[in-house]
Amino acid sequence: MSPLTVFTVPTIANIENNALRQQLQQIIDLKTKPLGALGRLEVLALQLGMIQGTTAPQIAYPQIRVFAADHGLTKHGTSAYPSAVTAQMVYNFLQGGAAINVLARQHNIELKVVDAGVDTDFAPHSQLLDYKVRHGSRDALTGPAMTEGECLAALQNGMRVVENLPGNLLIVGEMGIGNTSAASLLLARLGDIPIADCIGRGTGLDDVGLQHKKNILTQVLERHSEAKAPLAALAALGGLEIAMMAGALIQAASERRILLMDGFIASVALLVAERLAPGVAQYAVFAHHSVEPGHTHLLKQLNAQPLLDMGMRLGEGSGAALAYPLLQSACAIVKEMASFNDAGISEQNH
Amino acid sequence: MSPLTVFTVPTIANIENNALRQQLQQIIDLKTKPLGALGRLEVLALQLGMIQGTTAPQIAYPQIRVFAADHGLTKHGTSAYPSAVTAQMVYNFLQGGAAINVLARQHNIELKVVDAGVDTDFAPHSQLLDYKVRHGSRDALTGPAMTEGECLAALQNGMRVVENLPGNLLIVGEMGIGNTSAASLLLARLGDIPIADCIGRGTGLDDVGLQHKKNILTQVLERHSEAKAPLAALAALGGLEIAMMAGALIQAASERRILLMDGFIASVALLVAERLAPGVAQYAVFAHHSVEPGHTHLLKQLNAQPLLDMGMRLGEGSGAALAYPLLQSACAIVKEMASFNDAGISEQNH
Repeated sequence: MSPLTVFTVPTIANIENNALRQQLQQIIDLKTKPLGALGRLEVLALQLGMIQGTTAPQIAYPQIRVFAADHGLTKHGTSAYPSAVTAQMVYNFLQGGAAINVLARQHNIELKVVDAGVDTDFAPHSQLLDYKVRHGSRDALTGPAMTEGECLAALQNGMRVVENLPGNLLIVGEMGIGNTSAASLLLARLGDIPIADCIGRGTGLDDVGLQHKKNILTQVLERHSEAKAPLAALAALGGLEIAMMAGALIQAASERRILLMDGFIASVALLVAERLAPGVAQYAVFAHHSVEPGHTHLLKQLNAQPLLDMGMRLGEGSGAALAYPLLQSACAIVKEMASFNDAGISEQNH
Repeated sequence: MSPLTVFTVPTIANIENNALRQQLQQIIDLKTKPLGALGRLEVLALQLGMIQGTTAPQIAYPQIRVFAADHGLTKHGTSAYPSAVTAQMVYNFLQGGAAINVLARQHNIELKVVDAGVDTDFAPHSQLLDYKVRHGSRDALTGPAMTEGECLAALQNGMRVVENLPGNLLIVGEMGIGNTSAASLLLARLGDIPIADCIGRGTGLDDVGLQHKKNILTQVLERHSEAKAPLAALAALGGLEIAMMAGALIQAASERRILLMDGFIASVALLVAERLAPGVAQYAVFAHHSVEPGHTHLLKQLNAQPLLDMGMRLGEGSGAALAYPLLQSACAIVKEMASFNDAGISEQNH
C-alpha cells in the first residue's frame, strides 16, 4: 500500500482573489497616512485579509502548540545537550517557566504541549496532550527514523491536534534535542541543498561538534539516498515532532487559519507540509529570521520575508510569539484607522 | 547673553556599571535556554536593566507625546502635502483615527498631542497640550527658523512636557508638514553629511519634487553657514517640534526614563539632544529603521541598531509604538523565565 493513498490530504483553498486584493489595497491606501508609509505592516494587513478572505481581518483565540519528541540519532553525539533535556523542558513548559510560556502569557495566546514522541512517560497534565507515537524516533543512521506507519500516525495526530481548535491563528513550536539535525536532513533532501549549507550549531555545538554533526548527517543522507518523495524523506530522516507539526499545518491551512511561523524547524515542517499538500504555505506569515544557517536557505525556497530579525535560535515557537503583536497591529490599522475622507484631510499636492 | 548660559542642561547619569552589567548578564545566561539563544532580546533586556539601574527592569505607564508644528520653509514647495494637513492631522489625533492612536490603544500607551507651533488656533481639548511657541517656524531660507529666544522656549517647553509625567518610558512622535526638511538640514549640519545623503521623499515627493527640495535645502545651509554649534544650528534650521522633542528627550534622560525612539525625525531630535546634553543617547532604544534615507546615516552616527525594519516612514511615533511589545517581552523574560537551577535542567554536553 503506497503511503500517498493512505494519507488523505485535505483541500487547501487558494487564497488568491483579485477583487478582494484590490478592495483591501484601496482600504489601506485611503487611510490617513502617505501612500505606503506603514510599509510592511500594510503588506501584512493585506496578507491577513487574503488568508481570511475578508476586508476586515482579525485574530481570535490564538493558539500555540509545542510539539516535543526525542531523536534516535542523538546517540551519535549530534547535539550539545543530552536527550534527557527534552523531557526536562516539557516539565518546564508545564510549570510555566520557559521562554514560550512567558511570551504566550504576555500576549494571551493559549499554550499546550504535545507529546509527539518524548522518550519519557509523563503523568497526565491539563496542559499536556498525549499524541506520543513512540518513545523517540529511531536511529536514522541505521534505518528509517520512522516506519511508514509511524510517520503517517504522526501526520494524522498533528491534524487531530488542530481539528476543533478554537480561534483562527496557529503557532507550532517544538522542543526536541536533536531536531535541528532532522530538520537539516529534510531541508537538504527536499530542498536539494548541500548538507553543509543546512546545518548549524543547534543549541550550541562548538567547531568540533559541528564537523562531527556534518559527518553523521552526510552518512544518514547516503543511507537513505532513495528516500526522495516527501513522505518517504520524512519517514527516513524523521522527527516525530516535525511530522506532527507538518500535519498540524496542513489541517490548519485547510481551515484557513493563519500559520504564524517560528524559525528553522517549524519552517522545515512547513516545507514538508507544502510538498504534501501544495498551497499550505500561502497561509504562512514568517515571524522571524533564525540565525540557524539553514533557515536562510529555507526562507529563500519559500520566498519568505520574515517580520523580525532578532538573532534568535531558541525554537519553542518563541520567535512567532514575539512577533504576534505585529499581526494584531496590522488588523487594528485596517479596522480602526480613519480614512482621508472620514477625517477631512487634504490630498497630496504633487 | 549666550544661549548656553540660558539653557540649563540637567545632569544625565552615566548608565555604565560593570557590576550591574555582569549581574544582569548572569541572570540572563542562567535562564532555561541555550546561551544567547534569545539573541537581541537578551541584549535589549540587558540595556533596559542598565537604563533603569536594576536587575529587574520593568515598564510602567508608557507615554507617547506627539509634537506638532508647522514650517515656514514649506512655502517653497518642499513637501508633498500642504501645511494645512498638520492641523488636520492634529484633529485626527484628537479624534483617535490616526495610526499612532490605533497602536497606542493596542498597547495601552497614554497618548497626548503637544501643539509645539501649529499655524492654527485649537479649541482646548483634554488630549491637547498647548505649548505653542509661535504659529509655525519662520522661513529658514530668509532668516533663522527660530530666534534664539523661540528656540530656547521650545526646548524648555519640551522639558516641561516631561516633568512630572507618570511612568518610565517615553515615545516622542511628531507631525509637521515640512519637518523631514528641517530634520535633513540638522543632520547635514550636525552630522557633517552632504545634504544629498540626508534627504528623501518625505511624505511622498516625486523625482522633480525631490530635486527641488535638494536645491532649496542647499540654499538654506549656505544661508546659515555660520550656525555650527548645536543650539545655533537648531535655531537656524529649525523645527519647533524638533526643538521641543529634544528638550523632552533631555528631561526624560535626566529622569532615567527609557527613550523608545521612532524614526528619522525623532532620531534627529535625539542627535540634537545628545549634542546639547551628552549622555542622553544612552537611554535610547531604537525601535525601527525608517526608509527615509537620512535615517541610515543617523543610525550610524548614533551607533544604533533598531529592533524593526518594516519599511515604514510615517512618523507620529508609529514605529516606536509598533516595537513597544518587544520591550515588554524583554522585561518579562528577565522576570518570569525559570533558571536551569529552578527547573532542574541538565547542562550542555560540550
